[in-house]
Amino acid sequence: MSRVEVYDTTLRDGAQREGISFSVEDKLRLARRLDALGVDYIEGGWPGSNPKDSQFFARAGELKLKHALLAAFGSTRRAGVRAEEDGQLAALLAAETPVVTIFGKAWDLHVTEALQTSLEENLRMVEESVRYLKGKGRRVIFDAEHFFDGYRANPQYALRVLAAAEEGGAEVLVLCDTNGGALPSEVARTVAEVRAATALPIGIHAHNDGALAVANTLLAVEAGAVHVQGTINGYGERCGNADLCAVLPNLQLKLGRECVSPEQLATLTEVSRYVSELANLPPQSNQPFVGSSAFAHKGGVHVSAVMRRPETYEHIRPELVGNQRRVLISELAGASNIRYKAEEYGLSLDTPDRARTVLETVKLLEHQGYSFEGAEGSFELLLRKALGLHQPRFELLGFRLIVEKREQNGEPLAEATLKLRVGERVVHTAAEGDGPVNALDNALRKALEEVYPRLRQIRLTDFKVRVLDESSGTAAKVRVLIESRDDHRSWGTVGVSTNIIEASWRALVDSIEYGLLLPEG
Amino acid sequence: MSRVEVYDTTLRDGAQREGISFSVEDKLRLARRLDALGVDYIEGGWPGSNPKDSQFFARAGELKLKHALLAAFGSTRRAGVRAEEDGQLAALLAAETPVVTIFGKAWDLHVTEALQTSLEENLRMVEESVRYLKGKGRRVIFDAEHFFDGYRANPQYALRVLAAAEEGGAEVLVLCDTNGGALPSEVARTVAEVRAATALPIGIHAHNDGALAVANTLLAVEAGAVHVQGTINGYGERCGNADLCAVLPNLQLKLGRECVSPEQLATLTEVSRYVSELANLPPQSNQPFVGSSAFAHKGGVHVSAVMRRPETYEHIRPELVGNQRRVLISELAGASNIRYKAEEYGLSLDTPDRARTVLETVKLLEHQGYSFEGAEGSFELLLRKALGLHQPRFELLGFRLIVEKREQNGEPLAEATLKLRVGERVVHTAAEGDGPVNALDNALRKALEEVYPRLRQIRLTDFKVRVLDESSGTAAKVRVLIESRDDHRSWGTVGVSTNIIEASWRALVDSIEYGLLLPEG
Repeated sequence: MSRVEVYDTTLRDGAQREGISFSVEDKLRLARRLDALGVDYIEGGWPGSNPKDSQFFARAGELKLKHALLAAFGSTRRAGVRAEEDGQLAALLAAETPVVTIFGKAWDLHVTEALQTSLEENLRMVEESVRYLKGKGRRVIFDAEHFFDGYRANPQYALRVLAAAEEGGAEVLVLCDTNGGALPSEVARTVAEVRAATALPIGIHAHNDGALAVANTLLAVEAGAVHVQGTINGYGERCGNADLCAVLPNLQLKLGRECVSPEQLATLTEVSRYVSELANLPPQSNQPFVGSSAFAHKGGVHVSAVMRRPETYEHIRPELVGNQRRVLISELAGASNIRYKAEEYGLSLDTPDRARTVLETVKLLEHQGYSFEGAEGSFELLLRKALGLHQPRFELLGFRLIVEKREQNGEPLAEATLKLRVGERVVHTAAEGDGPVNALDNALRKALEEVYPRLRQIRLTDFKVRVLDESSGTAAKVRVLIESRDDHRSWGTVGVSTNIIEASWRALVDSIEYGLLLPEG
Repeated sequence: MSRVEVYDTTLRDGAQREGISFSVEDKLRLARRLDALGVDYIEGGWPGSNPKDSQFFARAGELKLKHALLAAFGSTRRAGVRAEEDGQLAALLAAETPVVTIFGKAWDLHVTEALQTSLEENLRMVEESVRYLKGKGRRVIFDAEHFFDGYRANPQYALRVLAAAEEGGAEVLVLCDTNGGALPSEVARTVAEVRAATALPIGIHAHNDGALAVANTLLAVEAGAVHVQGTINGYGERCGNADLCAVLPNLQLKLGRECVSPEQLATLTEVSRYVSELANLPPQSNQPFVGSSAFAHKGGVHVSAVMRRPETYEHIRPELVGNQRRVLISELAGASNIRYKAEEYGLSLDTPDRARTVLETVKLLEHQGYSFEGAEGSFELLLRKALGLHQPRFELLGFRLIVEKREQNGEPLAEATLKLRVGERVVHTAAEGDGPVNALDNALRKALEEVYPRLRQIRLTDFKVRVLDESSGTAAKVRVLIESRDDHRSWGTVGVSTNIIEASWRALVDSIEYGLLLPEG
């Protein structure tokens, strides 16, 4: 199988999507996840363009990547400046990455209109910038911006830009459809023509403005490209970049190209959801390959055919990308789901009736806005309660939360008082916090840690708030999801209420009840 | 310009998308809108498969379509039954549409595995069903289900199925990629080969399981197809169908095919949003051509170039599809974005220094977690403050929020007390609410409505909470986005703090300050 290099730009081009704002910490976590997925390059950012990207590169040493090479992204030197004196190139070097990707204009219109310089000077900018970075020990990838528009307008000049990068010492020439408007047939033809004109490996960087980014990427590979750029979930400016969650399985499962190992490919769905979590964007249920609806079947003929021969209604086996077949829930299918889940937890729902009772409770709670997908802890507690197996560790006798602000620009204070019955004892205590939920969390731990010292090992690692009926304004229902962990495992719990304090309280209580259920060590 | 027929199946295949449930009334409204858009065929449903679809056809006479022909969809006769005796075909005739679209299996595996009949009987089912419907005065379109999978497995048989439909009297042979897994190069090759084998017009019906539906449709047209099937917004089962909102402009603006008039094309964005309203699904901001981000510019370099020459960063002119350019404010933005925005608000940032000062403030706030993309209200207030134009309507002297819960299963109470200076007066008041933020909102309105009666016209329409550094658990920073409106316009505002009450307070204050700035009526 011939290999195709995968160049991920989720952290740079992906971060341009409207609504995404990754913290430095997010970017470090994402880089680790991308490395585990097996991409060959991780473009970390544009050093010098904003403080966050510079901080990311400063901390990149912590990453200890196993496979991927880190790339810093930036432009060629400015017009009329020596490479040695260009601040942008200096910032790229200061990022101290093994790979530097620089972009240069391949469309004459852009040279004269956007850069406002001469066509010849642009060629020198490309060649000298590449040579300078190369001379400093960097591997240089050249992104030929607006290549397809440029090639359509002035093919000779577009090719001269590539030649300048080659002359300077670039390793890969990446043809970018920066405006995302190129057509598949045009991309196939252009890549084939460029391939005939250069000996260097060709890459493709497609945007999705025409809804064609994935197809353009595949056709470029079929025409000879050996390096693909894209982002997880297709995040990116405007309509996004080529979605690696579709590019990878298409290349690997359909075109027979090798990108990552089969085991890594089988984590794709998980990676997609992880990235959407950190991006704080809801996962797209209809996303090809990795969406929750991608292998969903309705009842009847489809289902029985798919059970006999999956290929009758599935273009690939969902497990290959870590996704799963879903059969849309009839009441009965639901009950068997519940039984399946209960067995997973080592609980036995001895009668179909019992399974149906649990199912009714789940349906009722889901109707109220609960969602147990990320909240196995709350789901298991629910099962235990239904089976009469749950022994609460404490009883709430009351809490009072006060948030007080004393002047226009002052920071507000948050204080919680809490009264609990724990066994025979009544504990009455109080704590402050960074906000009301944090104060309540602190008070609850204070009240319980003496009786349950194990709580010291349990910490909250994640806290999410979703407003359910957003159009009800400040009276809307909210769902709070909390993720907790001890030294051995992590679990999610959930609470729903119109009152965010109450919703948080429910999720907090479940988090602690469930944590205390788990065997120690 | 050569014409390509557009066959819309939003009402049938589109309605299969998880979460969509159109009422009969919805379907009638949608059919009118699709007719106005200028599609050639509207597939109304599958009569007999569910009562709603039969009702739709019963009422279709009300529609008085101007251009589009209504089509009823269904399968060929069952195996071993005469066409005259088949209930399914009778239901199709009872729908009394000028066009009937029937699907038959073109993949031998499906004939034997799903239908469980012989290959020869399947050919008879196709031919006889088409001939029967044709004999009853219907124009018949034949959907060759699983055509590409079938052609890959057994090309001779797949072509014989098409020949049977032609023999029966079909007008158009539609090649369906039912499982959505065909590759663009394969589609192009297959359509060209089929075209050589039949004299009838060829159609294409693509699903998006490989993220390739739009590309496959375009390549089929380039290879000779003259009839395209798809849905508005690409709605459909699993990953959806080919999105007509991308197919139409690509065909018309890029491939030079004629589908609808330029005036009709310019309503595409509106049609897309109308359909998403009736489907009750949020519009996709990153949707090609018609999404709200499709022509949004974030980077500073982009903005200054696009202001001089739109084609530098826009693959088509947004007006052609009824969309518009947007300039976003973010840390990636340059001073030119800020200037563009300020002009939009009728504010003059007289010096480049002033624009840069505002930009620095924006960057600092974004670093703290602010995001102004959905919060033009807060952004304009920020501009006004920077220009010394802002006159606050009130001053906070203090608030206290109490949330109290008195027993394990009781609902908590939320009460806010609030002290403000409004002009010369000091107002001290209190209110309850459905949660702490709602209580604060109620108290703030109570305090201000007497002095600013206009507040009664301003209501909150949306409330979103994002936890920014989720891994800090309950001590995390949160960003609250509020959307408000009066009778004439809507605006967004934002607040950030580790304390959700404080973050909500800031967004609330901006919402009201900005609302009071707007001219009445």
